[in-house]
Amino acid sequence: MTHHTQVPGVARLIALDWGSTALRAWLLGDDGRVLDTHARDSGLLNVTSGNSDTRAGDYEKVFTDVCADWLDAHPGVPAIACGMVGSAQGWHEAGYLTVPTDLEFDAATLTRVPHQRGTLHLVPGLRVAPGAHTAGDVMRGEETQLVGVLDLLDDPAGDLLVVLPGTHTKWVRIVAGQVHTFTTAMTGELYGLLMEHGILARTAHAPARDNAAFVRGLDADTSRGISTALFGARALVLDGALAPGALPDYVSGLLIADEIRHLLQTAPGQRIVLCGKPDLCRRYATALGRHGVQPSASLTEEAAARGLWHVAATSGLVDARSRTEEVS
Amino acid sequence: MTHHTQVPGVARLIALDWGSTALRAWLLGDDGRVLDTHARDSGLLNVTSGNSDTRAGDYEKVFTDVCADWLDAHPGVPAIACGMVGSAQGWHEAGYLTVPTDLEFDAATLTRVPHQRGTLHLVPGLRVAPGAHTAGDVMRGEETQLVGVLDLLDDPAGDLLVVLPGTHTKWVRIVAGQVHTFTTAMTGELYGLLMEHGILARTAHAPARDNAAFVRGLDADTSRGISTALFGARALVLDGALAPGALPDYVSGLLIADEIRHLLQTAPGQRIVLCGKPDLCRRYATALGRHGVQPSASLTEEAAARGLWHVAATSGLVDARSRTEEVS
Repeated sequence: MTHHTQVPGVARLIALDWGSTALRAWLLGDDGRVLDTHARDSGLLNVTSGNSDTRAGDYEKVFTDVCADWLDAHPGVPAIACGMVGSAQGWHEAGYLTVPTDLEFDAATLTRVPHQRGTLHLVPGLRVAPGAHTAGDVMRGEETQLVGVLDLLDDPAGDLLVVLPGTHTKWVRIVAGQVHTFTTAMTGELYGLLMEHGILARTAHAPARDNAAFVRGLDADTSRGISTALFGARALVLDGALAPGALPDYVSGLLIADEIRHLLQTAPGQRIVLCGKPDLCRRYATALGRHGVQPSASLTEEAAARGLWHVAATSGLVDARSRTEEVS
Repeated sequence: MTHHTQVPGVARLIALDWGSTALRAWLLGDDGRVLDTHARDSGLLNVTSGNSDTRAGDYEKVFTDVCADWLDAHPGVPAIACGMVGSAQGWHEAGYLTVPTDLEFDAATLTRVPHQRGTLHLVPGLRVAPGAHTAGDVMRGEETQLVGVLDLLDDPAGDLLVVLPGTHTKWVRIVAGQVHTFTTAMTGELYGLLMEHGILARTAHAPARDNAAFVRGLDADTSRGISTALFGARALVLDGALAPGALPDYVSGLLIADEIRHLLQTAPGQRIVLCGKPDLCRRYATALGRHGVQPSASLTEEAAARGLWHVAATSGLVDARSRTEEVS
């Protein structure tokens, strides 16, 4: 058996962003440089059947499958994960920090989950405590993306509204590096449910990207409520006024516009940063533009890899100093 | 082979209300009296895979399965159906009448669908034509329930708002027996999608009826949008502020309140009649009560059987005069 001595860099960390519907895994080298990536559609909603007896084993199997080559090639490399994997329905409950809070994660904040190939470290989520008349809120995974966002921004100071579009879109108010509060809209999940199951899924034939339909959805009348506007999308198709293939983009526009209409008013005048899948960020930027708001930056969800590296460094899992610095 | 001579009544009509998620079938005798009923969870969303090549055959199989005993015992008895079975994704497209329209269905309005055991007659739906800035709307099945409602009400005259809660709740304005316009909210479908799939389904353990949770959902703050309020339900459970089993009723309250908040304002001062499953009608009545509105009547969805009988009579499928009248 020969050793692979020509590795492109020394592996320092296995880092996972493991959410509701998918996981992304990175093998990170010095300075958090990405050496390799894996992705799989295995999230909280489909890793397990929800049976609590087998759940931990189901998660461990996905983890060791996805990261098998890295675990084989780099025994002992530390591993860290953020996201719904740390929820009560995940691999292991990883707790929450309550806002307002800064985003410094030390070793005490991480939850250690031993498994057959080593130990996985889970980043805690953030929570908003419920008020007398308001529900609280929770996030898992986005706190780590936020760490990455602050690391990647040229000017992370001041009053910032970071919007992270996704299955559960987060609107996060950050002041001087501290998370003040946040709000979740399950817009992406609603879109997925409507387009996978339900009558609108049956109405949409041969979906095709249609930006004009998206903008039409953004500008549609929703004064009779979103539940009515959604059914209106079916009526438009039946009337021949909307192509069946354009229905998904129209519905995407309806839902995103409704979210922004309700949540933008809670954040007047703040500098807005988007972080998420480029296509989704473009949709949100277009929708924000309808309100005369221009995001000051748009980052990809790769911010999670940066955030995981940063947390691993502040918690002592990895040595944050690069090898270059070490030998200088 | 012996004949069943002790039948409780002469069978006059097989009548089906065949919707998105279920079908209900009645064997009707003189005067539309119910002789027998069948029900099955076979609606447009699960009768077929959506494959248009096999669709008609799939519908025919369900029909002849469900009604087998009636077809065997009463060869030649006419059959009529309303609902999504007559949609473009149903057994056969049955067309629409465009509002404003009265609710008199003659033979020319019915679509004849021949099959191996006879002919099924489909009732057309109703549609609202799209406006310059508004989507149109459609209903299938509820038009027949409306016929039954008008038949069953003591005083069907005047300006009436009939609300038919269900998968796709209809708000129908009827003036002097004529349907002026209507609006659909897909509240029931949203509830089903959220509670069958998605993260809230995972959050709700051992669902149990909880009327207090329903009322709490009705009164919850939705100023940040329904998509945000829905995620808030999960946060309440995670915070221990809502029992996991009470989450479905809380979500039901959120969604119904949001629908009523948006649609009640479009119908000020009208007399309101509810028609649907008793439990759903009670929920809507409670929600309407939050706005100081009291329904003047609440009818069950059995109104569909009455409506189908009425349509069969006006279209000449059955003789509306009862046997008692015939021999008198």
